Amino acid sequence: MQDSRAAAPIAYFEEMQSAEVVNSRMGADIPPRLHQVMTSIVNHLHAAIKEIEPTHEEWLAAIQFLTSTGQMCNDWRQEYILLSDILGVSMLVDAINHRRPSGATPNTILGPFYVADAPHYEHGRSICLDGKGEPLVVKGQVLGVDGQPIPGAQIEVWQTNDDGFYDVQQQGIQPESNLRGIFTADDGGGYWFKSVKPRHYPIPDDGPVGKLLRAMGRHPNRASHLHFIVSAPGYETVITHIFAPDCQYLPDDTVFGVKKELIADFDKVEDLKQAQALGLSTPFWRVNWNFCLAPAKAAA
Amino acid sequence: MQDSRAAAPIAYFEEMQSAEVVNSRMGADIPPRLHQVMTSIVNHLHAAIKEIEPTHEEWLAAIQFLTSTGQMCNDWRQEYILLSDILGVSMLVDAINHRRPSGATPNTILGPFYVADAPHYEHGRSICLDGKGEPLVVKGQVLGVDGQPIPGAQIEVWQTNDDGFYDVQQQGIQPESNLRGIFTADDGGGYWFKSVKPRHYPIPDDGPVGKLLRAMGRHPNRASHLHFIVSAPGYETVITHIFAPDCQYLPDDTVFGVKKELIADFDKVEDLKQAQALGLSTPFWRVNWNFCLAPAKAAA
Repeated sequence: MQDSRAAAPIAYFEEMQSAEVVNSRMGADIPPRLHQVMTSIVNHLHAAIKEIEPTHEEWLAAIQFLTSTGQMCNDWRQEYILLSDILGVSMLVDAINHRRPSGATPNTILGPFYVADAPHYEHGRSICLDGKGEPLVVKGQVLGVDGQPIPGAQIEVWQTNDDGFYDVQQQGIQPESNLRGIFTADDGGGYWFKSVKPRHYPIPDDGPVGKLLRAMGRHPNRASHLHFIVSAPGYETVITHIFAPDCQYLPDDTVFGVKKELIADFDKVEDLKQAQALGLSTPFWRVNWNFCLAPAKAAA
Repeated sequence: MQDSRAAAPIAYFEEMQSAEVVNSRMGADIPPRLHQVMTSIVNHLHAAIKEIEPTHEEWLAAIQFLTSTGQMCNDWRQEYILLSDILGVSMLVDAINHRRPSGATPNTILGPFYVADAPHYEHGRSICLDGKGEPLVVKGQVLGVDGQPIPGAQIEVWQTNDDGFYDVQQQGIQPESNLRGIFTADDGGGYWFKSVKPRHYPIPDDGPVGKLLRAMGRHPNRASHLHFIVSAPGYETVITHIFAPDCQYLPDDTVFGVKKELIADFDKVEDLKQAQALGLSTPFWRVNWNFCLAPAKAAA
C-alpha cells in the first residue's frame, strides 16, 4: 500500500481528478488530523460541485451568501451557528459525540440561551417569576441506566416565558433569572418544581439564514420545550430537552432538536383538590419525567 | 416511482438518516434548481461530517474559521473567493463551465486584477510603462479550431510588473494602465507586442486563508504568468493564461491555475541583430503563442 501522505504532488489541474490534485499539495509533515479533515472536506466539496455543476453566477451567489453570513456575526449573534443548526449539522455533531447505551437520556444541543449561575432552589419552588402562562408541574427521578436512583444529582432547567422569550432576550422586561433554576435530587433521586408551559419561538431570521430558510420553504420556529442539564459524579452529563407533545412545530422544529424519546406527556389536570394541594389554579399541566444517566466514560 | 420532492417530512432527527431528515423539510413548491442544489449540499455536508466525526471543539473552530473569513471581506478584499481559489473550487467551476473541443485554448479563472477599459495599442507596442524587468516579445496568431486565422480578433493582456504587482495594487507607484493592453489581430490573425517577463507573486495571505495555507504546509504563490482574454464574433471568448516554464512555483501554483497546455516556451535570445531590429537590448525573451477559439455555442 502506498502512503497517500507521501504521494508526489500532481502538478497541473485536471477536472477529472481535481480533488486529488488539491489534496496532493498538502505538506507531509502537517498534523495528521488536519490532513485527514482537509482531505475529507476537499473530497466532499469537489464531489458536491461536480454533482451540482454550478454556473459562474451560482458560484458567485454562494460566495456572497458565505460572506454575508460571516458579516452578520457579532458579539451576540452567531449566524454560522444558526446555519449549522438549520442544516442539521449541530445536531449531527452532537449525536456523534454523545452516543449512549440504550435507555440513557439522549443528548441535544445546548442552544444560545444557556446562562451559567442560575439560582439554586428547593424542590417544589416555581422558576416562573413573571406570573405569565399556564401552570406546569414537572416531577420525576434521576436514575442510572441500571434503574438505580442517583441521590444528589443536579438538575438545571431553563425555558422561554409565555411570550416565547428567554430572560436574556428581554433584559429589563423579564425579572432576572426568570425561568431558570437548579435543583438537587433527594435521597430517592427525586426532584420536582413548578413552572409554566413553554412556548415555541423563532430563531433570529432577519439575516442570510432566515432568507435561506424562506427560500427553502421552511419556517424559523423551534418546537416548545424545556432545556435541562443533568449531572452527577461518576455519570456522563446530559444536555437535553423535554418537548411538549401538542406544539404545532413538533414535526418540523427548525433546528432538528426533537428526538422522539424526548417528547413528554403533558397531562392537563382539571381536579381542584390536586391544584389546591400544589397551590395552583385549574387547569394546570403535569409532566412526569425521569432522566437516565450513562456511566462516565474513562478519561481518554 | 415516488416523487422525492413530495415525500412527507421525516419528523425526528436520527443520526443514521440525518441528511434525509433535513432534506425532507424543504417545501414542495420551491424552485427545482434550489431543491437540487440544497439536497446535494446537505448530502455531501453530512457525509463529510460522518467521515470526519468532528469533536465539539473542532466544530467550533470551523464555525470561527467561516466567520472570520466572511469578516475579512470588504470592498477590495474577497477572502471567500481566495478560499475557493486555494481549494481548487474556482478552477473546477471554471472547467465545468468551459468544456471545449480538443485543440481549443483552455479557459482559466479571470482573477481579481482584471480591469476593463485597458488602452488599445498598435502591434509591436510595449505594454510595459515602468521600464522594469527583462524584455519580452510575444507573437502569434488567433485561429479557429479548424486552423483558419481569425482577422480582427481582440487580444487583451494584463500581467504583473517585475516586482510582482499589478498596477491596481500600486496606484500612484506604477504608471496608470501599466502592463495592460488590447490588440486587434491583423488580416492573417496575427498579433505581437512587447512587454517584460512576468513574476510570481503571493495571493494576500494575511487573513484566515493564509493561515489555513500555512497550516496545510502550502505556500501562497502564483506561478508567473500573463493573463489574456481573446474574443471574436462567432467564437466563444477565452479567458486564459500563459505560464513561464522556468518559474519555481509552476508545479504548485497556489490557486491551481496552471494547465499543462498553457505552459509556453520562453526562448532567451542573445542575438544582437534580432534585438536591435526590435529596439531591444540583449538578452530578451521570445514567446510564440497561438490562441485557438471554439465556435460560439448556440444560445440556450
